[in-house]
Amino acid sequence: MLTSAELERLENAINPRVVAIIGATSETNRVGYSILESLLLGGFPGEVIPVHPRHENILGQRVYASLDDATVDPDLAIIALNEHATIKILDACGRHNVKGVVCVAGGYKEMGQEGEGLQEELKEAAARNNILLFGPNTLGLINAQARLNATFWPLVLDHYGSISVISQSGGVGQMIGFELNEEGVSFNKWFAIGNRAGLDFDDYLQALARDPGTDVIAVFMEGTEKARAFVELAAEVVPNKPVIILKAGRNEVAQQSALTHTGSMAGSYNVYHDIFDQFGLISVSSVPEMVSVSKALSIASLPAGDRVAILTPTAGPSILLVDLLLDQGCHLAQFGDDTIRDLANNFANVPVVLKNPLDASAVGYSAEGYLTLAERILQDPGVDLLLALSIDHKNRIFPAELLVQLSKKYSKPVVVYFIGPLDGLLRYREICHAGGVPFYHTAEEAAWGTAGLINRHRILDRGDYRRG
Amino acid sequence: MLTSAELERLENAINPRVVAIIGATSETNRVGYSILESLLLGGFPGEVIPVHPRHENILGQRVYASLDDATVDPDLAIIALNEHATIKILDACGRHNVKGVVCVAGGYKEMGQEGEGLQEELKEAAARNNILLFGPNTLGLINAQARLNATFWPLVLDHYGSISVISQSGGVGQMIGFELNEEGVSFNKWFAIGNRAGLDFDDYLQALARDPGTDVIAVFMEGTEKARAFVELAAEVVPNKPVIILKAGRNEVAQQSALTHTGSMAGSYNVYHDIFDQFGLISVSSVPEMVSVSKALSIASLPAGDRVAILTPTAGPSILLVDLLLDQGCHLAQFGDDTIRDLANNFANVPVVLKNPLDASAVGYSAEGYLTLAERILQDPGVDLLLALSIDHKNRIFPAELLVQLSKKYSKPVVVYFIGPLDGLLRYREICHAGGVPFYHTAEEAAWGTAGLINRHRILDRGDYRRG
Repeated sequence: MLTSAELERLENAINPRVVAIIGATSETNRVGYSILESLLLGGFPGEVIPVHPRHENILGQRVYASLDDATVDPDLAIIALNEHATIKILDACGRHNVKGVVCVAGGYKEMGQEGEGLQEELKEAAARNNILLFGPNTLGLINAQARLNATFWPLVLDHYGSISVISQSGGVGQMIGFELNEEGVSFNKWFAIGNRAGLDFDDYLQALARDPGTDVIAVFMEGTEKARAFVELAAEVVPNKPVIILKAGRNEVAQQSALTHTGSMAGSYNVYHDIFDQFGLISVSSVPEMVSVSKALSIASLPAGDRVAILTPTAGPSILLVDLLLDQGCHLAQFGDDTIRDLANNFANVPVVLKNPLDASAVGYSAEGYLTLAERILQDPGVDLLLALSIDHKNRIFPAELLVQLSKKYSKPVVVYFIGPLDGLLRYREICHAGGVPFYHTAEEAAWGTAGLINRHRILDRGDYRRG
Repeated sequence: MLTSAELERLENAINPRVVAIIGATSETNRVGYSILESLLLGGFPGEVIPVHPRHENILGQRVYASLDDATVDPDLAIIALNEHATIKILDACGRHNVKGVVCVAGGYKEMGQEGEGLQEELKEAAARNNILLFGPNTLGLINAQARLNATFWPLVLDHYGSISVISQSGGVGQMIGFELNEEGVSFNKWFAIGNRAGLDFDDYLQALARDPGTDVIAVFMEGTEKARAFVELAAEVVPNKPVIILKAGRNEVAQQSALTHTGSMAGSYNVYHDIFDQFGLISVSSVPEMVSVSKALSIASLPAGDRVAILTPTAGPSILLVDLLLDQGCHLAQFGDDTIRDLANNFANVPVVLKNPLDASAVGYSAEGYLTLAERILQDPGVDLLLALSIDHKNRIFPAELLVQLSKKYSKPVVVYFIGPLDGLLRYREICHAGGVPFYHTAEEAAWGTAGLINRHRILDRGDYRRG
């Protein structure tokens, strides 16, 4: 847990005016190059201070021999030196009032006993200089909203969303980041937290809890010795912002890999899972599930219950969806007699069975027919959420705008599952997302997103999870 | 089971010189329009005979008032009439030597008792005219290799693969078709089999078993009363071609939906699952899994064992992969002492733990470094398959061609999991697929594909599944 002074320092470090890169280099295959490139490519609007004893200019930027040569002090320093040099540079950072340092180097606790000693030295050096320590053994951090990319993963940061990511692994953080982008939402803050010698899970969570840019918090965890501090804090955050968590290590062997990766014990997967549930976190089993749930929660309003209705132009996929939804703990709505009677009027000569899932068949071929059925379903008081299926067909137009309007009119979330090649569907997705309707193009994602909304409703509704 | 005369007729029907569309129409929201459009858009090279009593010309095609007015007899007729008219037209089809009819109409067995009677009539009409019956209640069939699209789902058929699909649901067939395309492989034959009044699962399987264009057979099943005939035949097919099967209805409610959809009892999901396994089929749980497994089997050669090695530039994702692979029944290879010693030479000043998964860390940043490690791993006699991870980075080039060469050199399959935005990776995927290396861009897909190769190896290796 951070003091409020530390929280302010952290906010300053991730919203910096000036950033130093210590160990900047012109060798394109080194991290010291990629970090500088990341800052520039990302569009960082502040001042950048590359530091290297022998270079003069890299990527058009003047290079300084040391922090002493720069005219301003950096708020954030990214250190691309080896594990020993990283420790030594912290006193200089302290003299220049650096608020936080990103320590990229590995070779610490994850390497066993010797590394553990080094990590202690690193931690002490940061503490005595009053510097917040990101890492070590980390890809770095991104504040997309501030266009700050403090990683060696160059990206153009021309958009951001309201989902923020805390990942114990840089690579898994990248998986999450790429998939969020592919799903048409983006992250806001992104932390690869590495060995957690300084800042730990609870500190990042504390910062994101009060971050106005963050509505949804997604966490990837390999393991921690401080699980209790984290979940107790999470239980305080959960009433305001959903916390979605993916835990690695379902199998013993994967747990051992996690141990050597970030030097943390993985602990029993099932124990973690149960605890997360008790404390009101939403526990997921994969990156795609995490992304689908986070997306739904960042886009849609919550249902008032757990009864899902499905409207589909084709029966088979809705059968797969029913399996997926029930596996995830959702319930299928039962249409009321009034609803059945009214629906029947739409199917004069079309042979269909009137039930949920409702196979619109030929009636749903036209936008009008589809919308009429959708509206009647949303009017049913036994329906809390509509999962609207569609399937790509060159002669059919999907009524995205009007579906968005129906969702608003009846104050019930609508989730779209659209079968087809994504390229051709992006225009629909954009309209849906802008209107609060999460849009998916696999059945699994649609079911995860739907279940995420329902689980979040349940967590807030029951309110009986433990508080810190 | 079909006689050899029937098999020949089936081959003739799905490789037709002439196709009739009975009930062709100019109303663009009717199936009779979409079917004609499908034939034309698909690029069907044969003759098309649209039949309608009052139209003269649709989509630039001359329309015939009846089959009697055409100068040639069709091999295949697609009937876009209602459930009653469909039955009546079959005698005319018989007089004109039609080999097979696709019956699109619903309103038969799936609608209960009355529909069941109609379905019997339909079946008898087909039988007395010596016509093979596709459907009814079906989207139709596609022979991509012959550029025949006999569905109301218009597509350009400019490519085809070696995976063929038998789907009890048209919509699920479309999910599979779209996802195969997105995965960079395509289908060869595609059958939505509907109510199976005439041709049934075993008949389609029998046809695909001897189809030279088909290497892999993917089946979606809601339920059948003739499961035994199907699995016994499958056991005969399996030594030559893998059969991958997805069964709907894990939950009771989904089973009921299946019943009203295609008029078939779903049966217990677990019983089906066990039987499939006993008879050497590869049972999958979702469309993405089916597509990933089919893709691997259509691209790669089989491993000689089940020991997987993982090479990765980033540890976290490989931990998730280990979980996924072990869940799927794969084993992790243990590197030999020689291998460990040789690998160590590559990591002079880089702190890494030498084990499987191997985190290449900075060494893997260069194509040369990555390939050296990959080759040394493939040389290890304890490794049967290499799962090669990569992650998109603007300054890195992925050595796709050379990885393909290594797979060939050591006669061991390599599977690629590439983290990044798919758009930018398509060039790599193309090289990999052409070279026998399945390329995936989610961890789940990579694990399913890998497990598919290993399961197929086990099935052929044990050879102890029941035969028909």
